[in-house]
Amino acid sequence: MSDESGPTDNLAALIEANKHYSKTFDQSELQPAPTKHFAILTCMDARMDPYKFAGLMDGEAHILRNAGGRATEDAIRSLIISHKFLGTLEWFVIHHTNCGMTLVTDEKIGDLLEEDLETAVFDGETWINPARDASDNRKSGSDAGKSMAWHTFTDLNQSVLTDMETIKNHPLVPSHIKVYGFIFDVKTGKLTPVVR
Amino acid sequence: MSDESGPTDNLAALIEANKHYSKTFDQSELQPAPTKHFAILTCMDARMDPYKFAGLMDGEAHILRNAGGRATEDAIRSLIISHKFLGTLEWFVIHHTNCGMTLVTDEKIGDLLEEDLETAVFDGETWINPARDASDNRKSGSDAGKSMAWHTFTDLNQSVLTDMETIKNHPLVPSHIKVYGFIFDVKTGKLTPVVR
Repeated sequence: MSDESGPTDNLAALIEANKHYSKTFDQSELQPAPTKHFAILTCMDARMDPYKFAGLMDGEAHILRNAGGRATEDAIRSLIISHKFLGTLEWFVIHHTNCGMTLVTDEKIGDLLEEDLETAVFDGETWINPARDASDNRKSGSDAGKSMAWHTFTDLNQSVLTDMETIKNHPLVPSHIKVYGFIFDVKTGKLTPVVR
Repeated sequence: MSDESGPTDNLAALIEANKHYSKTFDQSELQPAPTKHFAILTCMDARMDPYKFAGLMDGEAHILRNAGGRATEDAIRSLIISHKFLGTLEWFVIHHTNCGMTLVTDEKIGDLLEEDLETAVFDGETWINPARDASDNRKSGSDAGKSMAWHTFTDLNQSVLTDMETIKNHPLVPSHIKVYGFIFDVKTGKLTPVVR
């Protein structure tokens, strides 16, 4: 037996888990503004829980997550809202080791998606699309991925530094906001500061 | 005494909390692909912890968060990567009650930021910029906010439905991906399904 679940299980399990959660819910007095006045921007990666690795309680901080923890336009939109309406003054940019975004390039993503939308497999060296026989008529790929920015990167330290700069240099980010950079190690749970 | 902390405390506290976390870290065997094959897209709001409200363990799901939990281009980028490289097959779009994104309009955000980048205050009816005296020469506002999409919304059910549609209709989203919508109630901890 494995710990993996299929699609039909997940919806029911989530609803059931939430029933239990709401029965003992005691956070109704929390206010929208984070009490610690900070926000964390990190990756969507399943192995990282910012509440745990940063020792946070409910109500203390904004958590922003996307593929890579990158300072995309949308992440910056969210950070500006976080400061302008909810008073955060410090932002932590946290990328992590073994990130999928370092194992592929923007160009490769565009090529793979043009051929096929199904989940690719990593053959040890590169990503390849799943095999298809001639009778398979599922929806095929699209070239829409060629014109998208996928925000892949190769150097982990550099990606954190680049994102910190992107944030600091944005015209809507006040100069007194503090921006910190860290790398989370998925093998040790440890955060290491990134400094220029 | 209050439970609020200032900027200098936060960095040290986060580093200290992480030291404790990494000392007992036992997740080094987790793999990048989420074992439950799903992703949650939700708001950055400090009052919501998806691991708790959805009953999740480390390694089970991707968590994507931005201001509002909106299906922005960046959220869709992340979801496509989640499916294409890490095999997720179900995506949950979860917005929440008392969301700051319903208390302001895109136009108003542009106006407030043009005048001043400092945190605004809600006077019970609308957001206003903080008072400034004439000697205050901090960096003032910028009109860069006028050309940004802030993804505010007025109807919570509709915002979930709109985002579900945006995701389903994207050319890079396979038709067999399941997209579910929910509203999280910050006063009860309860998830309510959104259906057309």
